[in-house]
Amino acid sequence: MNSYTNPQVLVSQAKDQPISVTPKDLPLELIETLRQEFGEAFSVALAIREQHGQDESSFIAPPPQAVVFATSTKEVQRVVELAAQYCTPVIAFGVGSSLEGHLLAVRGGISLDVSRMKEVLAINTEDLTVTVQAGLTRKELNEALKHTGFFFPIDPGADATIGGMSATRASGTNAVRYGTMRENVLALEVVTAQGKIIRTGTRAKKSSAGYDLTRLFVGSEGTLGVITEITLKIHPQPESIMAAICSFDTIAQAVNSTIEIIQMGIPIARVELIDVNSVRMVNQYAKLSLKEDPLLLMEFHGSPLSVQEQISAVQAITQDHQGCEFEWAKTPEERNKLWGARHHAYFAALQSHPGTRAISTDTCVPISRLADCLLDSIQEADESGLPYFLVGHVGDGNFHFGYLIDPKNDMERSKAEMLNTKLVQRALSMNGTCSGEHGIGLHKMDFLVSEIGEDAVDLMRHIKSALDPLNIMNPGKIFTDKDL
Amino acid sequence: MNSYTNPQVLVSQAKDQPISVTPKDLPLELIETLRQEFGEAFSVALAIREQHGQDESSFIAPPPQAVVFATSTKEVQRVVELAAQYCTPVIAFGVGSSLEGHLLAVRGGISLDVSRMKEVLAINTEDLTVTVQAGLTRKELNEALKHTGFFFPIDPGADATIGGMSATRASGTNAVRYGTMRENVLALEVVTAQGKIIRTGTRAKKSSAGYDLTRLFVGSEGTLGVITEITLKIHPQPESIMAAICSFDTIAQAVNSTIEIIQMGIPIARVELIDVNSVRMVNQYAKLSLKEDPLLLMEFHGSPLSVQEQISAVQAITQDHQGCEFEWAKTPEERNKLWGARHHAYFAALQSHPGTRAISTDTCVPISRLADCLLDSIQEADESGLPYFLVGHVGDGNFHFGYLIDPKNDMERSKAEMLNTKLVQRALSMNGTCSGEHGIGLHKMDFLVSEIGEDAVDLMRHIKSALDPLNIMNPGKIFTDKDL
Repeated sequence: MNSYTNPQVLVSQAKDQPISVTPKDLPLELIETLRQEFGEAFSVALAIREQHGQDESSFIAPPPQAVVFATSTKEVQRVVELAAQYCTPVIAFGVGSSLEGHLLAVRGGISLDVSRMKEVLAINTEDLTVTVQAGLTRKELNEALKHTGFFFPIDPGADATIGGMSATRASGTNAVRYGTMRENVLALEVVTAQGKIIRTGTRAKKSSAGYDLTRLFVGSEGTLGVITEITLKIHPQPESIMAAICSFDTIAQAVNSTIEIIQMGIPIARVELIDVNSVRMVNQYAKLSLKEDPLLLMEFHGSPLSVQEQISAVQAITQDHQGCEFEWAKTPEERNKLWGARHHAYFAALQSHPGTRAISTDTCVPISRLADCLLDSIQEADESGLPYFLVGHVGDGNFHFGYLIDPKNDMERSKAEMLNTKLVQRALSMNGTCSGEHGIGLHKMDFLVSEIGEDAVDLMRHIKSALDPLNIMNPGKIFTDKDL
Repeated sequence: MNSYTNPQVLVSQAKDQPISVTPKDLPLELIETLRQEFGEAFSVALAIREQHGQDESSFIAPPPQAVVFATSTKEVQRVVELAAQYCTPVIAFGVGSSLEGHLLAVRGGISLDVSRMKEVLAINTEDLTVTVQAGLTRKELNEALKHTGFFFPIDPGADATIGGMSATRASGTNAVRYGTMRENVLALEVVTAQGKIIRTGTRAKKSSAGYDLTRLFVGSEGTLGVITEITLKIHPQPESIMAAICSFDTIAQAVNSTIEIIQMGIPIARVELIDVNSVRMVNQYAKLSLKEDPLLLMEFHGSPLSVQEQISAVQAITQDHQGCEFEWAKTPEERNKLWGARHHAYFAALQSHPGTRAISTDTCVPISRLADCLLDSIQEADESGLPYFLVGHVGDGNFHFGYLIDPKNDMERSKAEMLNTKLVQRALSMNGTCSGEHGIGLHKMDFLVSEIGEDAVDLMRHIKSALDPLNIMNPGKIFTDKDL
């Protein structure tokens, strides 16, 4: 099968807007200008282009026509100016860890790699803020904060860049207590589609000064501009941290415990569900010996007293739901190993079935509907016969199935897509969302319409065409083109 | 002086876009249609129009040409449809408590009063959410929640409507712990300028599904559409609540205590600064006998143990800064009296100088700059000779001077405006914002440009004209018109 005509990419586009699967060549003049101005930081080598033409999704599309590695906002600005001049798409690229096809060059164009923009521009512990360039990763940021007594909590599975995490409104395991990128980005520097450099906010903790441009760009998936700098909230490292594992006979018991923990308002820092499949995969991958049952992986932050209080309250709840005794990860090393294992669930799953790719789901529902939504979806997954894993930021009502498929096997792919469709429909019927944290990308454009309706999506289109009239910023993502 | 040609209103408009101070009459056909369809809920009576032609700002402008009292989203939709048909401005109106001239009909048009839309549509305590109509006030909401064990924390001074609070991105005394409307609005129902009814989100706690339309409308001051329903987060009523007053010899000591409390990450629920002027005014207004010194009014929420822990930590800090012993408001009645007094500071000030209006400032700075910003501004206010009061949500770095002026005295007005200008410039130079919670309205359009630059304001204009091409939604607010 020609990897450039994978039907899934076509399928996920609206019928009225088939993508160009063979991007036309870039104008020679543009190539020459980029080569002259960027030298070795510009490349049309196939290997480099292919590396920038995929993400962690299972989609396959033509690679971008060129790659530029920017090292400054000015360079980003220059690339965008040239792209506008030649009406060429620009796709901002961090580490390539997005999951819904955000980075695929479905209309060709330039991949603008910002991963060399790694500067920590300011650490203002006295104000609990930090300002960084877009290419710094979350782990690099926490490394830079290590000796300050503060940390940055948002932790999607991958070691994503702060720019990419902002662009997809990422979250992760700490969101239940610390919020997502939506709550933790204070301000952005953005290069607009017109090549202007703007700053969307200040370092003040709150503001009512005009439209919330910060939150408009957070989650805009590169379709409105290129994020170059980010001012973030940071948080004091808790005086005491305790991590515990609680195993259950059934997933229902684990989920119902979580629902009660949240409804009681216990300020738990992390509460992650791992199903028995994932426990097995993680045990094998990370050489752990977790009890092979559904489990909750929890973490408690606060003063020693407050942590003890939280633990007692949670223990009472899990005991009510026939949870086992807590097992403790006491030292920072033990904790890191445990959370590392959780973050590696995705790779553990892939390794457990060599040659497969995972189709990841990402629904999020109001917490009271979590058990209903999950249990019906587990039954469907079991009946499908596909291998799968299930992990979830269940404190937020957000969970991920990963259906493991052979990407070349169309039947497996459609089976997985069918499961995802049913799951999303179920979540929407429960007033949930089709994406808790991964974004829409290429994959969920139809679901977005089901979720908020054509009129609201049209409103997004109007914003897009007002801010990017040439449609050069990561075109073909979030929604299909349409005459308005 | 003709109240319709108050120079302040003109002054606050850009030079290139003078406002029409004598609005032309509404088309007769439109008046007839509104009268037929809305009957007694439609009015052109001068008294009703004048009541809808002002807010708590000190500006004076012509009243709207008509008022419609809507009782449903469908009725809001119908008014917007007619307004679009006749190219007539629509200004959504709640209780008229905004402070920056948001509600003034500077281009004429229809005041669309939603205060009769008061239904509590759903209380989902199991999900910690509630859905209400836009005209419900915050106190009415908390009354509806009283016996559920949950509450809604956002409390601007006035008993504003939830719709109005959403439109201005309001906050208040609890924001330091619970966030502002930005963090507490989950989803909105909005009637767009095209008369479409859209829903901007779901009841899921987090989402990465497309552009953040919810946060675009939160803080848009009625310029992009009319908010008709709001889904909010609610919070468990704390097991224990303790409120304390701590007096200081100097404001600097109070402010520096606050800075340390925040930098330590103590999860204090409220920490309000009241200067000695306000203490005097409040004592008189609310028949209290607070010690007439600068003071911090604090509240601690949590389990009894955690509250005790917070109090001990805060006491250690205030003692370091020569704070007095805490005085306690122990019973709910005592607490309500105290917070009522805080919320009445504004009216207490006006009453202390009959016939005056307050020019309120609203800057917010990174917490480490709070003392510098405040102390310089106090010196300037003292030197001006104007009576003033000073209150502040200092835990957020946000504070308000209220300069008391005779609204007919141009010299006093310009003196107050000069103080405000200096204050805003100071806050901006410290990477703060010109508005922490009141919004831009008519009053701060120039400051907004100083804060984020003409290019970012142009971006807002592009969004506005994309979503409201006829410029009928509360025109002339946030930014001046300009050909883009």
